[in-house]
Amino acid sequence: MSVLSPQVADYLDKASWIRRMFEAGSELKQKFGAEKVYDFSLGNPDLPPPPEISRGLEELSRTVSRPYALGYMPNAGLPGVRLALARAVSREQGVDLAAEHVLVTCGAAGGLNVFFRAVLSPGDQVVCPAPFFVEYSFYVQNYQGSLVPVPARPISFDLDLAAMERALTPRTRAVLINSPNNPTGQVYTREELTELVRIIDKRSREFGRPILLISDEPYRFLTYEDTVVPPVMSLYPYSLVASSYSKSLSMAGERVGYLAVHPEMPGGEELLEGLNLTNRILGFVNAPVIGQLLLEKALHVTVDTEVYAERRKAMARILEEAGLEFALPRGGFYFFPRAPKGDDQQFVRDLFQENILAVPGSGFGCPGFLRFSFCVSREVIDRAGPGLKKAANG
Amino acid sequence: MSVLSPQVADYLDKASWIRRMFEAGSELKQKFGAEKVYDFSLGNPDLPPPPEISRGLEELSRTVSRPYALGYMPNAGLPGVRLALARAVSREQGVDLAAEHVLVTCGAAGGLNVFFRAVLSPGDQVVCPAPFFVEYSFYVQNYQGSLVPVPARPISFDLDLAAMERALTPRTRAVLINSPNNPTGQVYTREELTELVRIIDKRSREFGRPILLISDEPYRFLTYEDTVVPPVMSLYPYSLVASSYSKSLSMAGERVGYLAVHPEMPGGEELLEGLNLTNRILGFVNAPVIGQLLLEKALHVTVDTEVYAERRKAMARILEEAGLEFALPRGGFYFFPRAPKGDDQQFVRDLFQENILAVPGSGFGCPGFLRFSFCVSREVIDRAGPGLKKAANG
Repeated sequence: MSVLSPQVADYLDKASWIRRMFEAGSELKQKFGAEKVYDFSLGNPDLPPPPEISRGLEELSRTVSRPYALGYMPNAGLPGVRLALARAVSREQGVDLAAEHVLVTCGAAGGLNVFFRAVLSPGDQVVCPAPFFVEYSFYVQNYQGSLVPVPARPISFDLDLAAMERALTPRTRAVLINSPNNPTGQVYTREELTELVRIIDKRSREFGRPILLISDEPYRFLTYEDTVVPPVMSLYPYSLVASSYSKSLSMAGERVGYLAVHPEMPGGEELLEGLNLTNRILGFVNAPVIGQLLLEKALHVTVDTEVYAERRKAMARILEEAGLEFALPRGGFYFFPRAPKGDDQQFVRDLFQENILAVPGSGFGCPGFLRFSFCVSREVIDRAGPGLKKAANG
Repeated sequence: MSVLSPQVADYLDKASWIRRMFEAGSELKQKFGAEKVYDFSLGNPDLPPPPEISRGLEELSRTVSRPYALGYMPNAGLPGVRLALARAVSREQGVDLAAEHVLVTCGAAGGLNVFFRAVLSPGDQVVCPAPFFVEYSFYVQNYQGSLVPVPARPISFDLDLAAMERALTPRTRAVLINSPNNPTGQVYTREELTELVRIIDKRSREFGRPILLISDEPYRFLTYEDTVVPPVMSLYPYSLVASSYSKSLSMAGERVGYLAVHPEMPGGEELLEGLNLTNRILGFVNAPVIGQLLLEKALHVTVDTEVYAERRKAMARILEEAGLEFALPRGGFYFFPRAPKGDDQQFVRDLFQENILAVPGSGFGCPGFLRFSFCVSREVIDRAGPGLKKAANG
């Protein structure tokens, strides 16, 4: 007899194809050797952390042997780190945040859970453009809410604003966007966001309660050809930003990110108290202290983004040569091309025959497409070219 | 208008007295100077982390500047850390765990949330002896379950087994114990646990589904006068252990602990898959990587427990001299004496007049008692003696 809740048992059941896919990938690597497998399936940054991280650890090693050095702290994080983050977010968002408007969180994933735990009641809805990062749907269901995906317009995946408006109901508690987007690589324009906010605001008034807008931005640091990610906070007072340093500092395992609340949000003070509480009661307690201390030393730097820019060009070339249809990503490290015959699962199998691993769009609520991550060396990209072409034209 | 869920808004409302208490404590410290205030309210270890931590950071600083050094990992943790933990837990619990039976978690708090998310359905109950660590009730409610506290027998706070048996219903999904106990300092005996397990097993058979037993043991390393914490896993196959290194390594801020599943639990493999999933979807993703790497280097050591043993004696002396009734703690760093006139809130106020801070038992589901933590220097304990006596006899 299962000791799991029926819901979680069902999750496992539905996720079994992803597990099988990863297992098949591992077997492929064992059989042919990892260097003969072209793995575009993982969003795990392969660049080393910047030197500030190693230097920071060395400094910490000299100060850590005193009482409370790694002890409990306010649930919202170390005051100095919150202040530094408030300054950085203020610059990015064009509004003035104080330290109290920022919570340091266990990555963006932790921050989003803390947010949903604080604002959702059972039955509440969260509207999100599709495709979307597949975990979003779990984060919302953790608190008995439901994610309402609204298909964006292929192939560029800009927002279908009319459809977004129709999706907003009296049960909509929040709209969740992710820009630069995982998996599409697209960045919403200021015009799109302005119109989105107008719609949300209009619907909020109709329904008599504010719909919150939360923007998940871990790829903000990584855009191409002068693309700028427009700040949601300069457009809408009921807005929040979640982010993380997993990508910008190649520090995904240490789990450090933040949640920032618009300083002029009506009821924002109470919301911040609530987020503080839910960060505690979900068992995060606080974001890892060593990660926070390192962040304080490395907030002004990122990994070498030029490397990603080069890979993006190489990746575009092999996709083009294979005749695949795609929009050039404006940020992040993913391409999201259309599957040649519209069947993403079949194309994933065809690629597999060429030792190429990618993730079917079905996993992101968007069948018919595939996600290729370019967290792999330039050489791997180039060498995958012929196989990709063969699979696409087989 | 509140943007919080009504439940979380209600939590804030009910928790406001604790916030006021902490604020009053801070004001006291500002007014008289921190060294004139005797703060027994916090369970934040004040001993420095052992030298292995500083040495570990120094070693890490030399290896961290390579790809994936701090990257994503399996959700259950670094394989080497899981193996080391499996060996340690096997020794403690008297059963043979493999690496796959252990998940590294964001502290015990994270581990308990991961567990409850995996096994609870809305309306499920978790039975727990009272007094109890106040966060337990939130952890269970996060997933729409409810905590059913069963008063233990003062003044020693051993289990009321008949009452525990009556509390087990067809909706009981788990029994949660904490030994050494926060706040009582008591350690359940092998006889008590054997009888508890007999009851749980009997009820499980009656109801036709297994009731899980989870033991939260962050204070296992800290017992007095040869007290040994009996292992639940040697008694019951449907058992789990949650723990953390917050106390034993004075590393509460870095958030590293574990969840271990009995290797012979029927359905245990599926449960482990489920825990792996809930660790991911709650947004923990994995326990902080630097904390895990440090744990691997420091698993064999603890802070100097002799310091706690001495303080325990000093604390017992001042409580005795004040004429308070209490059982000597057998583990952990708390005393839980009875309030002189049975009114814990009033006694907290009386202590406050003497610049002494303690937490009322009401906060642990056990009015009429108070918690004194001895995470303070021996000197603070001695100097608090006269004020304690005065408050108790005023």
